[in-house]
Amino acid sequence: MFAGLKRVLIGSPLKTTQLAHERLTNVKALAVFSSDALSSVAYATEEILFVLILAGTAALRYSVYVAAAIAVLLIVVGFSYRQTIFAYPSGGGSYIVAKENLSSLAGLVAGAALLIDYVLTVSVSTAAGIAAITSAFPALHGWRVGLCLLAIAMITLGNLRGVRESGTIFAIPTYVFVFSALTLIVTGIVKMLTVGLPPAPVEGGAVEAVQNLGLFLILRAFASGCTALTGVEAISNGVQAFKEPVSQNAAKTLSWMVALLLTMFVGITYLSYHTGIHPSATETVLSQLAKVVFGKTWLYYLVQAATALILILAANTSYADFPRLASIIARDGYLPRQLANRGDRLVFSNGIVILGVLSSALIIWYHGETHALMPLYAVGVFLSFTLSQSGMVMHWIRGRAHDKKWLSHAIVNGLGAVTTGVVLVVIGATKFIHGAYIVVLLIPLIVLLFRAIHRHYLDIADDLRMNLDEPVRRVKHTIIIPVAGVNKMVAQTLSYALSLSDDVRCVHVSIDPEATAKLKAKWDAWNPGIPLQVVESPYRSLTRPLLHYVDRVERKEKDDMVTVMVPEFVPRRWWHHLLHNQSALVLKALLRMRRHTVVVSVPYHLKD
Amino acid sequence: MFAGLKRVLIGSPLKTTQLAHERLTNVKALAVFSSDALSSVAYATEEILFVLILAGTAALRYSVYVAAAIAVLLIVVGFSYRQTIFAYPSGGGSYIVAKENLSSLAGLVAGAALLIDYVLTVSVSTAAGIAAITSAFPALHGWRVGLCLLAIAMITLGNLRGVRESGTIFAIPTYVFVFSALTLIVTGIVKMLTVGLPPAPVEGGAVEAVQNLGLFLILRAFASGCTALTGVEAISNGVQAFKEPVSQNAAKTLSWMVALLLTMFVGITYLSYHTGIHPSATETVLSQLAKVVFGKTWLYYLVQAATALILILAANTSYADFPRLASIIARDGYLPRQLANRGDRLVFSNGIVILGVLSSALIIWYHGETHALMPLYAVGVFLSFTLSQSGMVMHWIRGRAHDKKWLSHAIVNGLGAVTTGVVLVVIGATKFIHGAYIVVLLIPLIVLLFRAIHRHYLDIADDLRMNLDEPVRRVKHTIIIPVAGVNKMVAQTLSYALSLSDDVRCVHVSIDPEATAKLKAKWDAWNPGIPLQVVESPYRSLTRPLLHYVDRVERKEKDDMVTVMVPEFVPRRWWHHLLHNQSALVLKALLRMRRHTVVVSVPYHLKD
Repeated sequence: MFAGLKRVLIGSPLKTTQLAHERLTNVKALAVFSSDALSSVAYATEEILFVLILAGTAALRYSVYVAAAIAVLLIVVGFSYRQTIFAYPSGGGSYIVAKENLSSLAGLVAGAALLIDYVLTVSVSTAAGIAAITSAFPALHGWRVGLCLLAIAMITLGNLRGVRESGTIFAIPTYVFVFSALTLIVTGIVKMLTVGLPPAPVEGGAVEAVQNLGLFLILRAFASGCTALTGVEAISNGVQAFKEPVSQNAAKTLSWMVALLLTMFVGITYLSYHTGIHPSATETVLSQLAKVVFGKTWLYYLVQAATALILILAANTSYADFPRLASIIARDGYLPRQLANRGDRLVFSNGIVILGVLSSALIIWYHGETHALMPLYAVGVFLSFTLSQSGMVMHWIRGRAHDKKWLSHAIVNGLGAVTTGVVLVVIGATKFIHGAYIVVLLIPLIVLLFRAIHRHYLDIADDLRMNLDEPVRRVKHTIIIPVAGVNKMVAQTLSYALSLSDDVRCVHVSIDPEATAKLKAKWDAWNPGIPLQVVESPYRSLTRPLLHYVDRVERKEKDDMVTVMVPEFVPRRWWHHLLHNQSALVLKALLRMRRHTVVVSVPYHLKD
Repeated sequence: MFAGLKRVLIGSPLKTTQLAHERLTNVKALAVFSSDALSSVAYATEEILFVLILAGTAALRYSVYVAAAIAVLLIVVGFSYRQTIFAYPSGGGSYIVAKENLSSLAGLVAGAALLIDYVLTVSVSTAAGIAAITSAFPALHGWRVGLCLLAIAMITLGNLRGVRESGTIFAIPTYVFVFSALTLIVTGIVKMLTVGLPPAPVEGGAVEAVQNLGLFLILRAFASGCTALTGVEAISNGVQAFKEPVSQNAAKTLSWMVALLLTMFVGITYLSYHTGIHPSATETVLSQLAKVVFGKTWLYYLVQAATALILILAANTSYADFPRLASIIARDGYLPRQLANRGDRLVFSNGIVILGVLSSALIIWYHGETHALMPLYAVGVFLSFTLSQSGMVMHWIRGRAHDKKWLSHAIVNGLGAVTTGVVLVVIGATKFIHGAYIVVLLIPLIVLLFRAIHRHYLDIADDLRMNLDEPVRRVKHTIIIPVAGVNKMVAQTLSYALSLSDDVRCVHVSIDPEATAKLKAKWDAWNPGIPLQVVESPYRSLTRPLLHYVDRVERKEKDDMVTVMVPEFVPRRWWHHLLHNQSALVLKALLRMRRHTVVVSVPYHLKD
């Protein structure tokens, strides 16, 4: 029944040989790899405004300068990753780059940061996508947690089926979003320069400052806006998916992505400032802006729909990244092996399920509020940026012998490493108490877990390693059968035991002397060739006297191994289990803790 | 650790030979067996008043007539049980009497009714006992559910330790209660006849009628008051505990009990009517009466304390009755066998725990309100009365050949049967919608369950019954070892298998051709004397190809049995289980469903 349900939900199993790769054109690749990065313009501006508004309405004008700084940062990071693309044409994720060039510890830190980040990408993108919908239809606002969970469940199921990263499916929402966002910006600017844009309707009028506008607040606004950079590294991870020449194509696509992201982010931030939009808990900034520019026309709804779709798509990209990274780390022995197995549909099912569960938990914990999740988000991204760029610097220095341009490469990545490192510190410091501390604490804990797991696998490998010259020796061995009655079940067990060994002992634990006498008589009448030994149990326990008996036999016979064969019913219905003494279960559990002991349940299938 | 906690809570195990019986003097026996019956005067009057008040204050005077009718009923039932005592000196519970004299179905119905009743006795008595306390200390009223659960937990724990039914311990609260209740009645009557009793202070004055005072309401009041009779049968169940001549002593004690119960019940009801007490949700009728008669003196607090104690004692008697009856029914094969086992402390631990859980659940469901639980209570009692008395009638008729007085005996029990039968119908009809329907539905369901369990045990016994002349034959047999690598764990399993059989197959399920080639080379280098067979798994499942392999071997070798030996780690820490593929677990579960298949886990204990 469970198997049937599984088939309906995720489809029939696929053969290993069906695993194949689709090579993408640049246009499709931009859609596949950029949804995470491009979609972040849906919330990055809002995050800046949410911080600045603390210093009152007047402070909102600083958003433009903050956005400009982030734009510069974006260009620096873009150039850095261009170099990674050429250096690692087979795909250079931060985990691999940091592990190969810095140390395995640096790799693990990057890995931990990335895993956390992928989970957050799902939660944040889903929450923001649902916010785009509830902004357009405010009646749904109260249902947002349920809608988020539904969306995550559907993405999870889709990925368990093995959604192909089909360029065509991705291309439509991505380009519709890009088109509608650019249309919004162009229309806004044209209107601004001609008829003029009306100011956004602000509920409650101007906001009073609750904090002073100081450097700290501006840095915090900058840190919040840095979420615009999440996902920029995606293309460098997936170089293999491009057509030949892979690196050139990937680099060209990266440039396009950076240009689009920059234009949309700066444009939206500028127009939001110009129209005086205030951030709100129930309507996104982008929704407010689209309303001001388009009015409540079909173009407004198009912007909202495209925003929701690209955000869901962004969440979906983590469903490829998280399980893939987890499987690489698992193959290196730092995560449970199960994460490295491909399921029926050739996807890393365990990783997909774990990602779905964790991101759903975050949604529930943070009530599906994008803004509440944000302080956790950028720390991991910038940590992995920094480690990856530092790793690239080492890469160039090591390869300086056969690369004339090594110094200029190292300088570009060095600039990237220093910049992202500084931003990491800014983010950590300004958002620490707002939630970043969770990630700061979690990363070392995860790294410790990685290492504990690794040590365990190494210990076991050590323990199991054998000398191939050692001969296989036969062991000295006794079989013990606990007997509760003379019946077919016991007879079957005895037949089975005698076919395996001549040294079989039958033992009965006596609780009721009367019943024991009857049993003994019946046994003797049957006379199976093995005597029935009786041990007394004054305290009515079945297990303790039996364990003592096993000890005695093992000592006396100097056995290498003892086998206890327990005759056991296989009832026809599950509830029948309740009707039989659970003593066999307890006995088996206790015996399993003994060394040199094998417990065998000999099943007796009841007739149907 | 669990074992240690168990020792502290319930003590060290006791030997079977420590099971002994105490013979009780009549004075002690009255205390031991009457707490349930006598304690019911704490709530029976109140139940009558709760019904009559529906017809307004003036209707309360009918309480005296209702009490008189119940007194007559009590005398009839008393005489009936006197006869049971003489006919069943070894103890004649309703289950046994109905089963032996009527039919096994009648016995099961009585058994179901009694089991329900014992659960209700615990809930009702505990709730009423706590009500006696919260009447004296109204501040505790809000805590009553917690207090009830605490009391039940303590009684349960005490019984798991094996509280001896020590006459002395029971005698004190019982006689203090009898003494204080009789003092209350005598003082009340003396004051009434001399200085006069003040009327009880009634909050809100006279109550308006919400129902007409008709025959139905009076019958419902009567039905409610019949809870006074609960527990009357206790002495007839425990005749064996009396000193010789057992029947005479038991009969004498029964008469005393009936006399005391009658006096207290009628006395309390009369005085309550005389002082015009209204039933209240927060203070018991008995507490109000004691306040009127004694004022808030130490005597008032003595009545409340003694009431609470005897009610807790009454709950405690069910802890002897329920597990004992359940064990008898289980021994007859109508309940799971585990209920017939005595635990470490010689008590029927499973029955005690079940009783504690069920009665606690009722307390929670009914918010610890005595009055809300009542409509469920008396149905079971009177059903078992009726069946028991009818059984006695049959008993006399069957034995008419060698008992000259059979007719008079039969008439007494017949009168008892008819009376209790009529009362049963009255209770069922008048309290049906108030809760009695639950019990009316539950009893047949429990009887069906009894029979399903019985049928299962009979089927199994049938299935297992063997012909003692049949010789024990050796079976044809193959051992299959699934191999994932060449290591000490596999070597150990192979050694073990070869010591049991010469027909051992090693098989590897190949998912990754490269890994398989390596394994094959290592195996050949090791050369343990058994070739490694490889089966391909295009869908990456370990279990399905292995199951097919087992099928093929079984068919080809014409085996009687196939043994699959799975090499398995025993990790040092529980969380290490998460780090190993769970495929062994899945494989074992699937193999267990095959017929003629034994699954053996050969444990490899990792070094510490």
